Amino acid sequence: VRYKLTIRPLEWVNGRVKWLDVTRLPFEEVYKESSSYEDVARAIERMEIRGAPAIGVAAALAIAAAVYNAAADSVDKLRELARRAAERLRRTRPTAVNLFWAINRMLRVVDSATSDPEEFRRRVVDEALSIMREDIEANMRMGELGSKLIDDGDVILTHCNTGALATAGFGTALGVIRAAWYEGKKIRVIATETRPVLQGARLTVWELAKEGIPVTLITDNMVGHVMSGGIVSKVFVGADRILGTGHVINKIGTYMIAIAAQRHRVPFYVVAPTSTIDLETPVDSVVIEERSPEEVRTVMGRPITLPDVDVMNPAFDITPPELVTAIVTEKGVIYPPYRENIAKVVKG
Amino acid sequence: VRYKLTIRPLEWVNGRVKWLDVTRLPFEEVYKESSSYEDVARAIERMEIRGAPAIGVAAALAIAAAVYNAAADSVDKLRELARRAAERLRRTRPTAVNLFWAINRMLRVVDSATSDPEEFRRRVVDEALSIMREDIEANMRMGELGSKLIDDGDVILTHCNTGALATAGFGTALGVIRAAWYEGKKIRVIATETRPVLQGARLTVWELAKEGIPVTLITDNMVGHVMSGGIVSKVFVGADRILGTGHVINKIGTYMIAIAAQRHRVPFYVVAPTSTIDLETPVDSVVIEERSPEEVRTVMGRPITLPDVDVMNPAFDITPPELVTAIVTEKGVIYPPYRENIAKVVKG
Repeated sequence: VRYKLTIRPLEWVNGRVKWLDVTRLPFEEVYKESSSYEDVARAIERMEIRGAPAIGVAAALAIAAAVYNAAADSVDKLRELARRAAERLRRTRPTAVNLFWAINRMLRVVDSATSDPEEFRRRVVDEALSIMREDIEANMRMGELGSKLIDDGDVILTHCNTGALATAGFGTALGVIRAAWYEGKKIRVIATETRPVLQGARLTVWELAKEGIPVTLITDNMVGHVMSGGIVSKVFVGADRILGTGHVINKIGTYMIAIAAQRHRVPFYVVAPTSTIDLETPVDSVVIEERSPEEVRTVMGRPITLPDVDVMNPAFDITPPELVTAIVTEKGVIYPPYRENIAKVVKG
Repeated sequence: VRYKLTIRPLEWVNGRVKWLDVTRLPFEEVYKESSSYEDVARAIERMEIRGAPAIGVAAALAIAAAVYNAAADSVDKLRELARRAAERLRRTRPTAVNLFWAINRMLRVVDSATSDPEEFRRRVVDEALSIMREDIEANMRMGELGSKLIDDGDVILTHCNTGALATAGFGTALGVIRAAWYEGKKIRVIATETRPVLQGARLTVWELAKEGIPVTLITDNMVGHVMSGGIVSKVFVGADRILGTGHVINKIGTYMIAIAAQRHRVPFYVVAPTSTIDLETPVDSVVIEERSPEEVRTVMGRPITLPDVDVMNPAFDITPPELVTAIVTEKGVIYPPYRENIAKVVKG
């Protein structure tokens, strides 16, 4: 089976970063281009570029674009510029670990020894392009491994958007679904709308429709009822960070889906590249990004409540390991006990 | 402590039904008036009037208005009209049992022996006004009983709108919260927005703000995360139908809140008048209303996804008795075992 790349949300075009502004989907397909790392940083903050793997790739490309386009004639100046770009990009979003992983990988190349500015530029750009290419390869490998967990006739519930639009292309959890579909399995998807930013209703529905995969949209609070009707075969979600203990930090709402899945004995799978794994941070130290209250007070910019109402807006929640059936990575499918098996896969 | 009626969503004004069109809240406070049962039936279908107790009261008032304003000079003709009105109103919404309870109560008066048209009109109107008055009395009594379950400092999570706007005034679950507040307890409320129709964001926030009770709005998928942070003391929700087994049929999303509450050992209380209790229907025969897909495809009339995406839109879900800590009715607080204790309270 050959896998296809039908959607490319991030590209490197003549030394500039090109991205699909996903905030306009599914109503408009708007692409933007810039060589400025500040523009890319703002696009990440506004969630024009979103999804843990995608923001890592975008940050790498932004550092590369800064260096590629700089007039500076010394490696020292280019290095300083790259570090400034890295610092700025690092502050865009606090939760997804792929961002820091990609930035750190870029900085290792930035720090490598060379005194030739052209050689330096080439190395930095090559590294960013490698990160992008490897992300797609990892997605396809996860698709291959994960689709073995999907049976013909399965109805798969998914949350948020973990597709091509969340990565350099193809997708993580949605990549597994896409792979199963390419392999000819007759599957159906139930997509949660994923308030407040509606990645499910706007992005997952659009992506699956484009692919021709049957999808049914529900509101987030219908998951329990739908599972109690016995129609959900499996849950597949992505992750913004996976701890060494097996705790999965992912889009707000994931935890409630996992609780409902456990009650109804529906297998709950997480799909993420190993760059999402964080062996260092203990669960109590994880920073859960609190986003603007306006995201909750409005839907697509339009008020739905009183303008000054108090609001909580955590962007992520934490699913404990006992609710996770398995974690699909590009290096293999990890089963419990996670404390042992995650470290084994990452280090092995 | 004296309880107040600060909001009257339903009134009888000179032989006409007056209602607050809650679909326009919180942005506009629009009242409508009609003597036509067809107008009231459509207002119920469009959810201009919503909430299980409120639709029961509105149906009773609509039957009364039909009879009150009819030119007919024979009781037979008035009786036929009342039955036609009852039939139409019965078809508005299938799940809330208070609707059928109120209509049946009206029909018993319609069927009672009299040959004097004026006497007939008087009896029918009196019965509707009694149903309205008794609803408010039941709410206040539930407030009194339920507020004993609330401690100073509690943070109470609630779903949908179960306040004055869901009843003839005061409210069920929100009535208990209101009563505790009037009694001087320092409480805070966390309100779920309640997709798809956003009764939490639009109505509960408005009602609590009007009352001065502190409220924090969250999206439906944040409940698990908020509970895992340990900040929710208790859950109070309403019910559209409570079976003799203790199964609670209520607004979609209630079941997921109950599952999360159980996991985090948060008490889960249901507040509803005994007119909500249905001792006849087995759980497998309950009709869960499936509403228009447009409610899910849009938010307040504006598209959020592809126009033709397949959608599920069950308006209610079923919470099994093992997840319910207690049921507050106007006749007392009911604890498990529900099969015995519900029948005792209803019949006793």
